[in-house]
Amino acid sequence: MGHYGDPMSGFRHVVMFRWAGGTTTRQQEEVAARLSELPARIPQIKSYSMGVNAKVNPGGYDFVIVADFASREDYLIYRDHPDHRAVVNEVIQPLLGERAAIQYEL
Amino acid sequence: MGHYGDPMSGFRHVVMFRWAGGTTTRQQEEVAARLSELPARIPQIKSYSMGVNAKVNPGGYDFVIVADFASREDYLIYRDHPDHRAVVNEVIQPLLGERAAIQYEL
Repeated sequence: MGHYGDPMSGFRHVVMFRWAGGTTTRQQEEVAARLSELPARIPQIKSYSMGVNAKVNPGGYDFVIVADFASREDYLIYRDHPDHRAVVNEVIQPLLGERAAIQYEL
Repeated sequence: MGHYGDPMSGFRHVVMFRWAGGTTTRQQEEVAARLSELPARIPQIKSYSMGVNAKVNPGGYDFVIVADFASREDYLIYRDHPDHRAVVNEVIQPLLGERAAIQYEL
């Protein structure tokens, strides 16, 4: 809908997680480590950025992924890819407190 | 914490909004139009991407901003800039149902 800066096109998936109480640093690192394997396994991923809350503001989420694809169809391949589903089911879902997500045309 | 794709550095702000019930398309367009003016007014903004939910998945947020800055300090200038605060107070806050945000080091 609008972009200012480097030219972009394609389809973007943005998702934030808030971890459940009691989630350890080691568990959070495991999430990032497992997600980090996905770009090499799912060629539809054009760009994959992960971050942990820099704690500048109160109330922020704990973790975010910004993933770019050439098209909506490529995003759907990622979404439903067995390697992605395995990370979601095995390491994200068990720690999940809250999730916020959106996908949009770049 | 991790990036695959085009090289990046700096500081990123990601925020999603869910509009309150009864929010009109015209009101949502006003939000985007007002936000679109900020990159020209706040030179600390390096990249500013806005999007509306492509409705691929149920439960998604309605609107997202991904804004990149050279540093945490530049983000804070944006956050507290009077032109930004005016958009938040005048057109976003009155429509806001739910907000999800995170800032992270790229």
